[in-house]
Amino acid sequence: MSNSLDSKRTVAELKELRALTGDDNGAQRVAFTDTWLKARGWVRQKVVDLPLEIHNDAAGNTWFTLRGESDKALLIGGHMDSVPNGGWLDGCLNVLAGIEILRRINAQYKGKPPITVRVVDWADEEGARFGKSLFGSSACSGNLDMNEARGLVDKSGIKLPDALKNVGIDFERVKDSGVELKNAAAYLELHIEQGPVLLDLDLPLGAVLGTFGVERHAITFHGQAAHSGSTPMNRRKDAFLAAARMSPEVYRIAARSGNGVCTIGSCTTKPGIVTSVVEECRITLDQRHLDAAALAKMLQEAKAASEKFAQEGNVKVSWERLWQIAPRPFNDELIAFCDEAIREICGKSHQLPSGPLHDAAEVAFAGVPTVMMFVQSLHGISHNKIEDTKEEHLEMCVTAFDKLADKAMAWIQDKS
Amino acid sequence: MSNSLDSKRTVAELKELRALTGDDNGAQRVAFTDTWLKARGWVRQKVVDLPLEIHNDAAGNTWFTLRGESDKALLIGGHMDSVPNGGWLDGCLNVLAGIEILRRINAQYKGKPPITVRVVDWADEEGARFGKSLFGSSACSGNLDMNEARGLVDKSGIKLPDALKNVGIDFERVKDSGVELKNAAAYLELHIEQGPVLLDLDLPLGAVLGTFGVERHAITFHGQAAHSGSTPMNRRKDAFLAAARMSPEVYRIAARSGNGVCTIGSCTTKPGIVTSVVEECRITLDQRHLDAAALAKMLQEAKAASEKFAQEGNVKVSWERLWQIAPRPFNDELIAFCDEAIREICGKSHQLPSGPLHDAAEVAFAGVPTVMMFVQSLHGISHNKIEDTKEEHLEMCVTAFDKLADKAMAWIQDKS
Repeated sequence: MSNSLDSKRTVAELKELRALTGDDNGAQRVAFTDTWLKARGWVRQKVVDLPLEIHNDAAGNTWFTLRGESDKALLIGGHMDSVPNGGWLDGCLNVLAGIEILRRINAQYKGKPPITVRVVDWADEEGARFGKSLFGSSACSGNLDMNEARGLVDKSGIKLPDALKNVGIDFERVKDSGVELKNAAAYLELHIEQGPVLLDLDLPLGAVLGTFGVERHAITFHGQAAHSGSTPMNRRKDAFLAAARMSPEVYRIAARSGNGVCTIGSCTTKPGIVTSVVEECRITLDQRHLDAAALAKMLQEAKAASEKFAQEGNVKVSWERLWQIAPRPFNDELIAFCDEAIREICGKSHQLPSGPLHDAAEVAFAGVPTVMMFVQSLHGISHNKIEDTKEEHLEMCVTAFDKLADKAMAWIQDKS
Repeated sequence: MSNSLDSKRTVAELKELRALTGDDNGAQRVAFTDTWLKARGWVRQKVVDLPLEIHNDAAGNTWFTLRGESDKALLIGGHMDSVPNGGWLDGCLNVLAGIEILRRINAQYKGKPPITVRVVDWADEEGARFGKSLFGSSACSGNLDMNEARGLVDKSGIKLPDALKNVGIDFERVKDSGVELKNAAAYLELHIEQGPVLLDLDLPLGAVLGTFGVERHAITFHGQAAHSGSTPMNRRKDAFLAAARMSPEVYRIAARSGNGVCTIGSCTTKPGIVTSVVEECRITLDQRHLDAAALAKMLQEAKAASEKFAQEGNVKVSWERLWQIAPRPFNDELIAFCDEAIREICGKSHQLPSGPLHDAAEVAFAGVPTVMMFVQSLHGISHNKIEDTKEEHLEMCVTAFDKLADKAMAWIQDKS
């Protein structure tokens, strides 16, 4: 084992993992499957030479703990599970970079760092089987909705509690995993971006400001069916016209909001036949922003626009909330360290919000100071076998993430 | 039998027919059903005292012929069939007004008018059972697509040719009915408007300029699916945005066209989930205009707009023609007579195109000088049990339609 960080080793291990748990269609480490268990067993083999305490918590998250002088702990997180036909980096890059950092710290401090350092492999981040992401981390943060989770079933009709039982987890006790966060002083997570922002800026790495808050609604416009041939244009109560006007409007709303995004993802029409004016049109709207007030303003503007278009088109409009989550801004000091670490390695950094949710959002919810680092994604794509990152960027991210870990450790010591 | 036209008798007969062939849900005279046959038998009973030749032609259309001095014939058409749960006036008003006019002409000319006068009850105008309207009149005009019609099946899987066989019609010979138009010199049809134009103008009657030509297309925009959280707005290839921009645009196109109409009747989105930018969006567009050049211009403008929106939104667009039919303008001289007849009865007339198709469009296609008269529809609605017309308007329309028949007879005599 080399005494210093070896980012090339992480890249080599990622390739080894890909050969072991992927196929022509991509990564196949879906949570609670044999391939996932194989990947987790493989990680444990990788650290047999390190003086770690390793255990699974009550929610099935695996903790690799390097005990330090203090119980105060620096946490580094990732997830070995993938979506079916997933990318080769999403989740496992985080874990393997964390393991490499454990190696460096163990060597540097001869097995006894000043504070405790822990790598966590969260269980079922993707939610691919039960349609509910962040299972392990939300159990640990206390944020998991037990009633909702208890009723989740997979495509074969198997309930989540039964699937958990099969891998030795008692569903009713998963929140006992919360004890793991007792001495947590900071949480760091590295992740492939899953979007094209760094690619567009031609930058390898970015510091993440937090995860977006989300407002998700169904908007239904209620007009009147009428014959397409005999109804003059000025007599129509066209539900599609009002709904359609929302599309360019939400682009304007997003632009005004700064860095928010708005998406109309689906549109259905009734009666939906070629010879009738649309009587009822339902669209879904997904709005995301890092700032709670800005998110609320985007929602308010969308509501006002829908009412204006409804009134102008002589139709009615109704809203139904589908889901919402508050923004999870990360820790300012850790963001500054992350920026600094990136600049030391790449010369230039960029701060960006995360659109998708990550386990980090749950840890931040639990009150642990948190930050994430993003590495550029080629094609701006993830959850797909073509997900990729340049090898030089992978090496850079491991090195910069290690610098961040070093700064975070010093920060935790200073605070103690 | 009174010697002069009795428009109140027509209203009374309409009520009698409603009691005989309707129920709480509306008219039930669906073509090729027992109730339809009952309605047709009832009409024959109404004319037993008149010296008429009555026969069904090769397509099942019933012809009531009052032979005149000349074989040149004035035709008056309607249809006894209705949609299921239909209105009490649609189609049968035309037939019963025609019968009343036959009574008046028979009395006036003591059984031998100068030209022949014929009332035709077209078979299956509505196409309710086989999804193909204007069956009898398109067979007679020669416009029926035999290959398409041969394959039509109803909801029970019964083929149109078999259903026709059951009522004594040989499908392969239906176009032999064309012989009926041999001496046709003019065709007149009265109909409830099926739209709100006369209602809005507060006018009882209108002269119809012709039936709209129709261009019916599916327009598909092809973008790229992308995560709703991680994809910046300016990176999106949003198929819904481009499709949505078509909606207000087709209203502008219709407005520029004069009296054309454009309808986007359906919209479907793929993948159609709340967390993804729309990859593919398909809308249907139905465009109608009385003028062929104006219709072609509306279509060209819609195509140009779709290409502009596709380019601006960085998506592709493709068009698929679903159906088209040319405009069927009516005869200018007959339109003038129709206007004149209306003004004599109501003081004021209005000229309007017909959005829906009618049997008259098929007769015009066959080269017979044609015109229609519309009577106001309360609520602007048809094909519905609430379809209705004020009783005073019903009386007016029978009287005005009789004036038109008188003018048309004189016109035919003059031309001979």
